[in-house]
Amino acid sequence: MAETDSLSEFLETAIDAAKRAGDMIRKGFYQTKHVEHKGQVDLVTETDKACEDLVFNLLKERHPTHKFIGEETTAANGITELTDEPTWIVDPLDGTTNFVHGFPFACIPIGLTIGKIPKVGVVYNPIMEELFTGIHGKGAFLNGNPIKVSSQAELVKSLLVTGVGTKRDKSTVDAITNRINSLLFKVRSVRMSGSCALNLCGIASGRLDLVYEAGYGGPWDVAAGAVIVTEAGGLIFDPSGKDFDITSQRVAASNPQLKDACVEALEEAE
Amino acid sequence: MAETDSLSEFLETAIDAAKRAGDMIRKGFYQTKHVEHKGQVDLVTETDKACEDLVFNLLKERHPTHKFIGEETTAANGITELTDEPTWIVDPLDGTTNFVHGFPFACIPIGLTIGKIPKVGVVYNPIMEELFTGIHGKGAFLNGNPIKVSSQAELVKSLLVTGVGTKRDKSTVDAITNRINSLLFKVRSVRMSGSCALNLCGIASGRLDLVYEAGYGGPWDVAAGAVIVTEAGGLIFDPSGKDFDITSQRVAASNPQLKDACVEALEEAE
Repeated sequence: MAETDSLSEFLETAIDAAKRAGDMIRKGFYQTKHVEHKGQVDLVTETDKACEDLVFNLLKERHPTHKFIGEETTAANGITELTDEPTWIVDPLDGTTNFVHGFPFACIPIGLTIGKIPKVGVVYNPIMEELFTGIHGKGAFLNGNPIKVSSQAELVKSLLVTGVGTKRDKSTVDAITNRINSLLFKVRSVRMSGSCALNLCGIASGRLDLVYEAGYGGPWDVAAGAVIVTEAGGLIFDPSGKDFDITSQRVAASNPQLKDACVEALEEAE
Repeated sequence: MAETDSLSEFLETAIDAAKRAGDMIRKGFYQTKHVEHKGQVDLVTETDKACEDLVFNLLKERHPTHKFIGEETTAANGITELTDEPTWIVDPLDGTTNFVHGFPFACIPIGLTIGKIPKVGVVYNPIMEELFTGIHGKGAFLNGNPIKVSSQAELVKSLLVTGVGTKRDKSTVDAITNRINSLLFKVRSVRMSGSCALNLCGIASGRLDLVYEAGYGGPWDVAAGAVIVTEAGGLIFDPSGKDFDITSQRVAASNPQLKDACVEALEEAE
């Protein structure tokens, strides 16, 4: 079987898993308003765990020889080393703060790496019913329709999306706001959605022009989005301009015309 | 006819106008990707103008004695003084940067003040098909279902939404990022959607806990949202804690439990 045939099969499995997990997330999303805070924390943990079990069980059943890396599994067992083997990298619920608050940017990102390269990606937002997909060499899609990155070539007319992470020590917060300060003089405006995976899909679909994120949870936040951005004609790179390292917790992405200006602006913002 | 009967009639007119203008915005939204930048600017101007004409013509036809304040009209003729007369306050397209970029937070806010108090509000996002409505004394609704503000009572667990406006001089940008820096130590996280009216609706629907905006375009960005927040059980106030002034270009809103902590945090962030 040719690799792209296998990849198409892997994508089908990932979509199936994401849709089923999405049903659980959607149900939990509309329940969060009716539970007390202790209950909300439990609901997040339960939804996270149940979604990861559901996704991994389905993937393991269909692809028993593959490896698996997930946020919940890593939290329980420590970091699993990424090898060249086909490896599913899953965040059962990206955007947990949004999920708790009912802000509609929550999703399930499911990525597959082969030879450490992301080859298949699915990011499903069950609240807005947006399914982003990508297969290496076969394009990127939103609900089945082809998507592409923006054609914006001028940084000053670009819309930046970023996040403020979860760390609130003084040096982290100062670094975040100093960077935003510096970038605000160079781009048109800034958005913050609270989901790293959906930010990458925003770049892939041309809704946003450049993304910068640092200090996010792990490779599960970016593996799926990396394929989708690349297949939509975008570039994914380390904010320094070097090659993207899926394990580094630093990522930037844009269309090809903006990359150099983006890297330069990020350097000046350090 | 009792006032609430009139207000219901006014709301029906506003919904009708918002839906029709929404059709134009939705059409333009999906066109922006296919036009050059000069064309995008024209498209924004044309959409803005056409929507304002459509909304005002319909409102004037049904309520010929009412007054009208709109962003486009004000840009052309200068500021119209807000009087005690029934006055429709309309932004034909809130979130123009999002509209140009294809980021799905664009809307038409239509508010009606009587005695300078917002009495009827409609905010329609035609991309996400979300219609927020409110009538003084009759509650707030999203697509016909009642909405209410969050019950979050702790600032540290609250989700803040804010915006960075359009001014990029050093003192404005420094003030914006210093404020975000200060607030990040006090709230859970921050979101930025790029639409002041939709931020207010986020508070009203409990998706977000507190909003702060300064230096936005004018009363058309807040008139409709003010009714919707209030009718959803929220408070709308000047960031100093004083009474909200619809003409001041400064607004904050939250649920009643959070207001004092919100005002204190905003004061410390100045």
